[in-house]
Amino acid sequence: MTGVDDRRQARVALTWLAEPGTRSVHRLVHQLGPVAALDLLLAGGAPERALRAAVAARTATGDARAVAAEALARGDRLGARLVTPEDDEWPPQVAALRNLVLPDATRRVDVETDPPLCFWVRGAWPLDDALTRSVAVVGARAATPYGSHVATELGYGLADREWTVVSGGAFGIDSAAHRGALTAGGRTVAVLACGLDRPYPMGNAALFDRIAETGLLVSEWMPGAEPLRPRFLIRNRVIAAATGGTVLVEAAARSGATQTLNRALGLGRPAMVVPGPVTSAMSVGGHEVLREKPRSRLVAGVAHVLEEVGRIGDDLAPLARAPERPRDRLDDDATQVLEALPRRRPIDLESVAARAGVDLRTAMRKLSMLEELALVVRRDGGYALAPPPGDGG
Amino acid sequence: MTGVDDRRQARVALTWLAEPGTRSVHRLVHQLGPVAALDLLLAGGAPERALRAAVAARTATGDARAVAAEALARGDRLGARLVTPEDDEWPPQVAALRNLVLPDATRRVDVETDPPLCFWVRGAWPLDDALTRSVAVVGARAATPYGSHVATELGYGLADREWTVVSGGAFGIDSAAHRGALTAGGRTVAVLACGLDRPYPMGNAALFDRIAETGLLVSEWMPGAEPLRPRFLIRNRVIAAATGGTVLVEAAARSGATQTLNRALGLGRPAMVVPGPVTSAMSVGGHEVLREKPRSRLVAGVAHVLEEVGRIGDDLAPLARAPERPRDRLDDDATQVLEALPRRRPIDLESVAARAGVDLRTAMRKLSMLEELALVVRRDGGYALAPPPGDGG
Repeated sequence: MTGVDDRRQARVALTWLAEPGTRSVHRLVHQLGPVAALDLLLAGGAPERALRAAVAARTATGDARAVAAEALARGDRLGARLVTPEDDEWPPQVAALRNLVLPDATRRVDVETDPPLCFWVRGAWPLDDALTRSVAVVGARAATPYGSHVATELGYGLADREWTVVSGGAFGIDSAAHRGALTAGGRTVAVLACGLDRPYPMGNAALFDRIAETGLLVSEWMPGAEPLRPRFLIRNRVIAAATGGTVLVEAAARSGATQTLNRALGLGRPAMVVPGPVTSAMSVGGHEVLREKPRSRLVAGVAHVLEEVGRIGDDLAPLARAPERPRDRLDDDATQVLEALPRRRPIDLESVAARAGVDLRTAMRKLSMLEELALVVRRDGGYALAPPPGDGG
Repeated sequence: MTGVDDRRQARVALTWLAEPGTRSVHRLVHQLGPVAALDLLLAGGAPERALRAAVAARTATGDARAVAAEALARGDRLGARLVTPEDDEWPPQVAALRNLVLPDATRRVDVETDPPLCFWVRGAWPLDDALTRSVAVVGARAATPYGSHVATELGYGLADREWTVVSGGAFGIDSAAHRGALTAGGRTVAVLACGLDRPYPMGNAALFDRIAETGLLVSEWMPGAEPLRPRFLIRNRVIAAATGGTVLVEAAARSGATQTLNRALGLGRPAMVVPGPVTSAMSVGGHEVLREKPRSRLVAGVAHVLEEVGRIGDDLAPLARAPERPRDRLDDDATQVLEALPRRRPIDLESVAARAGVDLRTAMRKLSMLEELALVVRRDGGYALAPPPGDGG
C-alpha cells in the first residue's frame, strides 16, 4: 500500500529525520521513492554513518510517521497545504539544485544542497505560477536607510511589472523588498526557515499575514519547526533556485547575506548586486562579490534587473530598440527642453524655458520641433512629455 | 642648422599650428624630425587638406617660429621649462598613445590621440620621476560631498604610500584628489588644458600655486594658450597615458568624465571606478562603465587601487602574504591604535590615545605590544608606524 497519502506523509517524515537538502536522502528518494526510502532509513539502513546516527537520534524522540501525520493535520488547521514534486504546482526549476556544486564547499550547508522534498505553502496561488516570473531580492538584516530605500524601490518596480518578488521575510532588506511589492499591489513570496505557524521574526507577523493574503508563504519545514540558525542557510538555496535571478542589496563583508547570491552563481542564474557608498560598511559585501565573481553583475535599478532576468520579450524589447530613437539626434537645447518637461501634468511655456535654462523663443522653437517628433504633447494649454509608444494611454 | 634650440622651438611651433595629438603631425615629426616637419607644414606641404587649411589659418595670424620663440621666453619668465622627448626627464610611457585606438571613434578628439610633442612643466621634480609611480584620480566637476570625500581619501592614501596623484586641476573630484595628496605631504601633478600662466579655473589659482611648490603643473599648451573646450578632452589622453592607472570617482550619465577612463581602457591600463549610491545622479556614469566595460574594475579604496597598479613589489607583497601578517591578529584596540599612527612624524602618547579613542593606559599597553611586533617605532620621544619591511629606511 503506497498510495498518494503515504508518499506525501513519507516526504514530510523524511524532512523531519534529516534536514532538507541532505544529498544522500534525496538520492534514496530518487532511486526508491519516498516510502521505501523512509522504510530504509527507519530500519537503520542509511548509507552513511552520520545519517544513520541522525535518524537514530530523531527516532528516539518519536515515531516519524506519526510526527508527519500530526504535521499534516496541523497544516490543514492552519490553512497550509503540502506541495510535492508529484503535484501540478511543483516548481520544476528547483531540480537544478541537484547539480549545484559550490566552490570550496566544506560546511555542511554548502555541501548538502539537494532539491527540497516538499514545500508547505500558505496563500491562494499555485506555487509554480507564482515563481515562473520571479526575482529574489535579498540582503542584510541590519540594512541602512539607503539599502531599505533601494530594496523597496526594487520590490515595487518588479511587482509593478508583474514579476514576483521573492525574499526571506527577515528584517531589513527582505522586509523592504516584500513591502515594496505589496505597496505596488503586486505579488511577493516569503520563503521561511521554520514552520509557517511560527513566523520568524515575530515582529514581521503582520507582514507575513499580508503576504499570505495576496502572495505566498513557503517553507520546507513542517508546522511547528523552529527557526534554527543553519536553517536560514539551508533555505537560501531554495530562494536562489526558485527564482529567475537574485539581487543582493546590502551585505557586510564576508556576511551570510552574500550566500544566496553565491548559490545563484553556482546555478548559473543571474547574480546581481546593487552597489552603494564605499564609505558604508553595509555595501562592502556586495562590492566584494562584484570584484571577486566575474559573472556577478552590477545593477542600479529595476531596468537593469529586468535586462538580466527578462527572458520574456516584453521586458527586453525597449532596450533592444534604443539605437534609433529620435531623441538621440536632438541638439543640446532641444535635449534640455525635453528634459525639463514633466511626464504628467503639463507646464506652461515660461516654466519650460526657465527649467530648461533657454530663452522663450528657443523654448518655443524646440517645443514645436519636439511636438512634430511626437516626443511632446500639448495639453490643457501647456506642454508635457508624450507617453512612451505602446503605452496605450 | 638644426640644433637643439631649433628642434625645441619647432616642437612648440607645431603645437601652435595644430592641436596636440594630431596624428599626421606626429607622424611627420617621427619621419622627418620636428624642424623639417615644421618647414614642410609652413611651406603648405601638409599631407591632409584639413591640416593644410588649419596651418594656413594660423599662419595668417602670425609667424610660427616667432610665436614659439616668444612662448619660450614667456616660459622662462614664468619659471616653466619645456620638456621634449629628447630630454632625460621625458616620460616614455606616453608613447603608448601612438597605438591608442578608441572603439567607435568619430569625434576629432577620439581620433587625434597621438603622443604629445612637448610638455611645459612648472615645479622642481623631473617629470619622469614624478610619473613613474602615479595614479590618475578623475571625475566630475559637480561632485557630491560623497565623491569629494572619497577623492580626498584616495588622494591622501595614494600620496601617503608615495604614489603621485595625477588629475586635471578642475573643481570637484580633481581638486579633492589634489588636495588629499597635498594634505598627506605627498606628490601631485595637475595636467592642465591651457598655458601654465593662465590657470583654469581661476578659482583654483591658489591650489595650482601649492601644487607647483611641491608637485608639478604640466601642460601641452604654450604659455598664454586659452582653455578652449576641446582641449580638456585632448588633454585627457595624457592623464590616462602618463599614469599607471586611472580611477573614476564620480560622473554623470554619458559624461565627459568617463572619457579619461575609456582612454585608460584603450591603452590597456587599469581602469578603475568607485561605485556610489544608485540614488545619486553623479554615480550613474561610473556604474555604466562598470556594467559596459568588462575590463573596468570596481575599487572601494586605496588598497584596491594599489592591487591594480602596484606592479612594484612593496605594494603587492602585503596582499599576497595577507593571511600571516601579525596585524591580522590584533585586537580592536590595537588595530585602532595602529591606524591612529602617522607614517612620518611621530606623535606623543596623548595624541595616540586621543586619535585612537582609547584611554592612556590602553594606548600604552597596545603601543608596547605593537613595538614588539615591529609595527611601531619610537622616535623623537613619540610613536610612528614602522617603515614597511624592505623599505631600506
